[in-house]
Amino acid sequence: MSKKLTIERVSPENFDTFVDLIRQLARYEKLDEPDNEAVGRLRRDGLSDDPKFQAYLGIYKGAAIGYVILFMTYSSFLALPTLFIEDLFTLEKYRRMGFGQQLFNFCIKQAKEHNCGRMEWTVLTWNKPAIAFYEKNKARRLDWYFYRMTQKDIAGFRER
Amino acid sequence: MSKKLTIERVSPENFDTFVDLIRQLARYEKLDEPDNEAVGRLRRDGLSDDPKFQAYLGIYKGAAIGYVILFMTYSSFLALPTLFIEDLFTLEKYRRMGFGQQLFNFCIKQAKEHNCGRMEWTVLTWNKPAIAFYEKNKARRLDWYFYRMTQKDIAGFRER
Repeated sequence: MSKKLTIERVSPENFDTFVDLIRQLARYEKLDEPDNEAVGRLRRDGLSDDPKFQAYLGIYKGAAIGYVILFMTYSSFLALPTLFIEDLFTLEKYRRMGFGQQLFNFCIKQAKEHNCGRMEWTVLTWNKPAIAFYEKNKARRLDWYFYRMTQKDIAGFRER
Repeated sequence: MSKKLTIERVSPENFDTFVDLIRQLARYEKLDEPDNEAVGRLRRDGLSDDPKFQAYLGIYKGAAIGYVILFMTYSSFLALPTLFIEDLFTLEKYRRMGFGQQLFNFCIKQAKEHNCGRMEWTVLTWNKPAIAFYEKNKARRLDWYFYRMTQKDIAGFRER
């Protein structure tokens, strides 16, 4: 691979760059981006001694061109940790240059190092380039539906 | 609700009962059930000081009739923890008696107590009773595909 990406853990020094990339992913996915309070929580939750997620930047020629957010979930049937990819993003103008692939290779490496039984993630059904990318990497789309209740749903929930 | 369930945290005392319920869920879902080594890991990972998941039994008249396994994931856009339901199961002969509902209510309560921004879970596409149950509870099915690489996929992965 010609254009080699450097992977750098998110730290107090590059935190603002990291937040800027999250915002750009949210815009790309047409989802709400983190507000100022959320950014404060991201800093606390990501940079604490017992962080709630692991975040890494992809650096090319000194510029942060993408990022990944990972955390461990768990499979009860395998009784092994699962590496869950919460976000994997490359800035649009840096696409088709092998950077997303290098971020994905890094995720695989992390899954191996932590002896994970699985690696899992979700993809928006309309995100055709992402789907093509994961299929190319021999990932399997599962016959599971993904369900959610929002904070509003939870707050307004009436016990049946 | 007439038949009141008691929710009990999984402990060394009820651990074998817990494993038996996991095995019954795996059979119901037509998936591989944990082998003996996996049971050893479940014990270590679930009962340690820093457990990888939280497990609870539903007890009715002294019998464990179902269980839930929960853990926290994280939303980067909300910058809030998500309560993820890994398993929620009621033994077949105890269905349609409100027990699954009480386990679900318990999950909602946990999500509120931990100030979660979301509660998420997956459902097998063929599991019509589960889908009907979650829809009745106003959960939203998301337009996301769920992707996985298995341990074998990860081990055999060749960097592109």
